[in-house]
Amino acid sequence: MRNLIEYGGRRAYLSSNLREIWFKVTLKETKSETLLIAIQTISYAISVDLKMINQKHFFTIYRNCASRVAFTKRPGTLSSKFCAQFKEYYPKLIDRALEQNKYIDHPLLKDRIKKISEHFILSKFPIQGEFLIHAYELLEKPENITKEKLNQAYILACSTEVYQTYISVQDDVYDMSKTRSGKPCWHLMPDASALAINDTTILRSFMNEILGQNIDESMYTQVINVFNEMYLVVEMGQLLDLYFTKTKNYDDFTMEAYNRMCYMKASYPFMNSATLFALILCNKANEESFKLVFDLCNELGVFIQIHNDFTECFDVGESMSKKSTNDIENNKLSWTAVVALRHFNTEQRNIFNECYGNSNPEKIKRIIQLYEEVNLRQLFKEEENARYNNFLRKVQNLPANATPPPDYFMKIFNYFKSYASDSSRFYYA
Amino acid sequence: MRNLIEYGGRRAYLSSNLREIWFKVTLKETKSETLLIAIQTISYAISVDLKMINQKHFFTIYRNCASRVAFTKRPGTLSSKFCAQFKEYYPKLIDRALEQNKYIDHPLLKDRIKKISEHFILSKFPIQGEFLIHAYELLEKPENITKEKLNQAYILACSTEVYQTYISVQDDVYDMSKTRSGKPCWHLMPDASALAINDTTILRSFMNEILGQNIDESMYTQVINVFNEMYLVVEMGQLLDLYFTKTKNYDDFTMEAYNRMCYMKASYPFMNSATLFALILCNKANEESFKLVFDLCNELGVFIQIHNDFTECFDVGESMSKKSTNDIENNKLSWTAVVALRHFNTEQRNIFNECYGNSNPEKIKRIIQLYEEVNLRQLFKEEENARYNNFLRKVQNLPANATPPPDYFMKIFNYFKSYASDSSRFYYA
Repeated sequence: MRNLIEYGGRRAYLSSNLREIWFKVTLKETKSETLLIAIQTISYAISVDLKMINQKHFFTIYRNCASRVAFTKRPGTLSSKFCAQFKEYYPKLIDRALEQNKYIDHPLLKDRIKKISEHFILSKFPIQGEFLIHAYELLEKPENITKEKLNQAYILACSTEVYQTYISVQDDVYDMSKTRSGKPCWHLMPDASALAINDTTILRSFMNEILGQNIDESMYTQVINVFNEMYLVVEMGQLLDLYFTKTKNYDDFTMEAYNRMCYMKASYPFMNSATLFALILCNKANEESFKLVFDLCNELGVFIQIHNDFTECFDVGESMSKKSTNDIENNKLSWTAVVALRHFNTEQRNIFNECYGNSNPEKIKRIIQLYEEVNLRQLFKEEENARYNNFLRKVQNLPANATPPPDYFMKIFNYFKSYASDSSRFYYA
Repeated sequence: MRNLIEYGGRRAYLSSNLREIWFKVTLKETKSETLLIAIQTISYAISVDLKMINQKHFFTIYRNCASRVAFTKRPGTLSSKFCAQFKEYYPKLIDRALEQNKYIDHPLLKDRIKKISEHFILSKFPIQGEFLIHAYELLEKPENITKEKLNQAYILACSTEVYQTYISVQDDVYDMSKTRSGKPCWHLMPDASALAINDTTILRSFMNEILGQNIDESMYTQVINVFNEMYLVVEMGQLLDLYFTKTKNYDDFTMEAYNRMCYMKASYPFMNSATLFALILCNKANEESFKLVFDLCNELGVFIQIHNDFTECFDVGESMSKKSTNDIENNKLSWTAVVALRHFNTEQRNIFNECYGNSNPEKIKRIIQLYEEVNLRQLFKEEENARYNNFLRKVQNLPANATPPPDYFMKIFNYFKSYASDSSRFYYA
């Protein structure tokens, strides 16, 4: 068995068999920080649970690796600085918020909130926060970025990291996951169990408390309204996701449903929100600018999600190794399923109905074979081109003085492209 | 076996044995609406699950009965009107909010949110909303209560009902309860299961959406800050509650810990909040008035909770029947345990350590016997008097022009006293 790990545009191979566990990492730039972290993470994963090194649990390792990736080149000056300072800044923010809240007056409460607030966040790269700061420095004139404004941006960036933990921990409970960011999942911690969900809801309230204590009155309402939408939208996405994983009526697997779910589970909580907060910080938030973000970031989010769904089943690089996939056995509403269903004849459709959503490796293989039969590789290239051209046309049609301006969207497109070919993995990493 | 149901100051007896299920309801005012509802509810409970008619599940029936109680006399004009209009007003508010939100654009999402928003709320009496409207009419001059203001109050009252559903459904998941308000618990609904928690978090976001759509800008920030505190405080109370139910170190069962938990799980989310919202509506919300509410409503909340904890173990009325109790077997940090522990000798303490938190009926009986040995009935009377006098002294020491004024606190005290001797049951009914 041979598996491909791909992160940051680099590739690594992890191989194992059940008698002899070993791994080999191949990178163009050896001795890089990335390589070291990859080795550390894989070693850790192996030491935690030998059983993880098999097809079924491979995604777990993959996810844990992805979250450990640290880039030496950051996309902008301020966002680089934020990332460098994050591990010092964030715990201080938490301590201050705990100190200032009059209800958190018991050591048990203080300790618990501190622990859940920091457990994962400090083990991973603050990609969501970085994106927000990057969006801010792209959208604001340097002379307007005062020390106070930058601090407001830092607080929002930290809060989006808290938001992501809320989503991730709940996700892990629903999916019964075992590890995240190289650590045991929160609900598997000795004293968490039944309290894990309650901890996440405390975290949500505590995040609001951080905002209440720190965010300027002038933008407070806008900020909490965006956060509330982020919660509402991602939770509704979760509802749809779980609905589709249970359905056997594949007429429901429409492109419209797929677009909606991408928007709810990826674009809005990750891409749109960072840009919306940046606009609020620049005092450029209004119905028109929000509408533009809604339209273009959504295109971008779906574009990246499609790439991710495709590479769940097909390798797009030089290696012929198949990547591990959970989408098929988990009956996911994926781009691959949606498009293939459009092209199946009756016989193929019947086979799909029988094999999709089944963990039997033969059935998974049969689904991938079906995808090959309808030439999904070609369909993917066509869709990727069409989507990219559509995005480009929309950007080019924007007036030069649009808010955000056209070049902003091109820059964030390149930012994501440069990050990783399947950067959407980072959403919940 | 004979059990006492007590609600609205009235008493009913429910008897059963395992060979022959029957019940008898005794009320002073027969043919009243209360009697009919009691019979309906008990019949329903029996039909749902015969096994419920035993000591262990009695509380479930009790809770379902309590929530069905409808009073013919309401405490104030406006609050009576609110209660009378609630079942018509509330669904319209939900429909409008669903209509206005651009993200809730799929029938599956609309239906789901509508269902969770109305499932329990329309099956029960809106006591939390009633209290808020009552607090408002007590605190505001009649000439200031415009149609618009009253509508704002209605929206807040409805939102507190949504808040209560959020807490209740989560509580039911944590406690693995079976029924609520005479209906199967939400997590036991055919299509809920794993989604139950996600549904509650959607509900929380949707409640914020209702506030965002409807609450005047002038008081919006204050309102959402109070709601956020309500979430934070009750969730921390839940954390403490679960911590104490697991501890075997009864040195932790202090009066300080008990007071804190009462405050977090009962006073703040129910009593304080209604008064705080009323103050916001009257434009009388400030640090000073909030501090006063914090102090006096807390006294009141603990007072009622103590009464409730005591009547979990001891009958205080004319009947000698013992009420069912879950506090002992669930290892609850209850007033009875806290006070008894203070008065035990070493031998009694050892027996307590052995028997508390155990579902064996003999051990439960032994705990109640221990309570009798330290004369808990007498201690309860003393504490009730001391607490009441303390509350009264605090109220009497308030300046006549305090906000809220002294008579407000006396009125809400009487309001709760008149409601039911153990009205705290209604918190999560």
